[in-house]
Amino acid sequence: MRLTPQQLEQFDREGYLFFPSLFTPEETARLNAAVPELYARREAYNVREKGSDAVRTNFAAHLYSAPFARLARHPRMVGPVQDIFGESLYMHQFKINGKMAFEGDVWQWHQDYGTWKNDDLMPAPRAMNVAIFLDDVNEFNGPLMFIPGSHKKGVIDAKHDLTTTSYPLWTVDNDLIRQLVERAGGKNGGIVSPQGPAGSMILFHSCLVHASTSNLSPWNRVSVYLSLCAVSNHIRRFKRPEYIAHRDFAPIECLSDDCLLAESPVALPWKDGMPASALVCDETPIDAIKRAA
Amino acid sequence: MRLTPQQLEQFDREGYLFFPSLFTPEETARLNAAVPELYARREAYNVREKGSDAVRTNFAAHLYSAPFARLARHPRMVGPVQDIFGESLYMHQFKINGKMAFEGDVWQWHQDYGTWKNDDLMPAPRAMNVAIFLDDVNEFNGPLMFIPGSHKKGVIDAKHDLTTTSYPLWTVDNDLIRQLVERAGGKNGGIVSPQGPAGSMILFHSCLVHASTSNLSPWNRVSVYLSLCAVSNHIRRFKRPEYIAHRDFAPIECLSDDCLLAESPVALPWKDGMPASALVCDETPIDAIKRAA
Repeated sequence: MRLTPQQLEQFDREGYLFFPSLFTPEETARLNAAVPELYARREAYNVREKGSDAVRTNFAAHLYSAPFARLARHPRMVGPVQDIFGESLYMHQFKINGKMAFEGDVWQWHQDYGTWKNDDLMPAPRAMNVAIFLDDVNEFNGPLMFIPGSHKKGVIDAKHDLTTTSYPLWTVDNDLIRQLVERAGGKNGGIVSPQGPAGSMILFHSCLVHASTSNLSPWNRVSVYLSLCAVSNHIRRFKRPEYIAHRDFAPIECLSDDCLLAESPVALPWKDGMPASALVCDETPIDAIKRAA
Repeated sequence: MRLTPQQLEQFDREGYLFFPSLFTPEETARLNAAVPELYARREAYNVREKGSDAVRTNFAAHLYSAPFARLARHPRMVGPVQDIFGESLYMHQFKINGKMAFEGDVWQWHQDYGTWKNDDLMPAPRAMNVAIFLDDVNEFNGPLMFIPGSHKKGVIDAKHDLTTTSYPLWTVDNDLIRQLVERAGGKNGGIVSPQGPAGSMILFHSCLVHASTSNLSPWNRVSVYLSLCAVSNHIRRFKRPEYIAHRDFAPIECLSDDCLLAESPVALPWKDGMPASALVCDETPIDAIKRAA
């Protein structure tokens, strides 16, 4: 067990844990150095901002980029999540979000589990969000905002917002946001925003309501967002392409703690391109899948 | 003289001065109470957000709303500006900016004097921006951001951005923003954001580069933005309608310090509607005006 009882209690109460400077500047630099080339690729897995060439999110880099494949198996990241779920994990989603200087657009208030439930038929919110800062995060470059304790509300009815940004999202109603923020302390702690140097990590509950504003600053705010799902809780529907919602439920096997700097060998199954099967989407209605299950 | 030598020196160096809680909660409440009815009016002077009914900015309320007519003549606001310019002032522009909860959109990086010079032919940057908070301002509700010292750059070439938001703005190039922020201290003070309770006031130089992000929080961030221009520096062209850029250059005569609560009598020339002349715009080219002058 790597988390203290205090940390477990705090995670249960607030819905998140913040680990400033968990990765060293040298480790973060190895990851950062790989980003420009990944973002430059004209591939389906690079989603760009509305009306701009800036990358909003890159998917599945752990399948075709060695530094990110190592990060996906890093014990400092995987260990605490395994502690919380008490079970092996697989990689449900792997994103490098841009939130680029001047260009980074908002992410509306949402729960991630809303999408995983509605689109992917993930049975329960037994998946953890992990955010790893590749740039320093401050109040000016569009930091993540959380409503502490909002994960206790469970799964919230959501509206599929297809128009605000370039990426469709199941978003939470404004009146409910108002209530959740008020319940969490209103202007005294009702919204929090963990900020700190590159290399910091946040673990947050997949039902924790979060958002981020646009980045008008001259500082990129690139972050890796991984979603680690308990193996027994794997998704039941492949409606979204595989580069977004993964279909390989094999348990993650951690590398050594020095894997990023040691450049440990790692498999890169999509090194030469995505398989055609990764784009095949299952449009079976939810009811039919549930009946068959 | 109401400003100290330290304040004058700070204004010269940083380009702004912050006065937390300059107006009392009771005074601010009188102003706030008048806003919903003003924002509900279907008039040209209410500019709404792109794709939303939320008011982005209301113009010229000091000509048709008694509380705001008093604020426009308040000695606590007018006095310090007169100290800085050493001359009588007239009201060039009077706005109540919404930046409403969930709806408030960005204001891109810009100098206000850019607009006044390009559109209104104001001879010199001898006009002061005044921001008065009608709501508490925090890091989550889209606060004003300044680049300290950027006013020293003088008038910056700007690009007329007609598409990003619902309001056209002469905006500053990203590369120059990067340089100005770096020169001002980069991540250590290169951007600042004065935050505080409702009733606080900021004075800022009309060449100070500023911006604000979208407001995703459940808290409105309504502010009054007044632009007080030295009388001798009045605008030379009436290209923009009078409700945006005023054409009455009579010096402001201050009311008493208790005018907001005492509800001092005040003239409201547009109480029964805008005169037709306020919409007449002069399209004479700048060169012709300059030749005639």
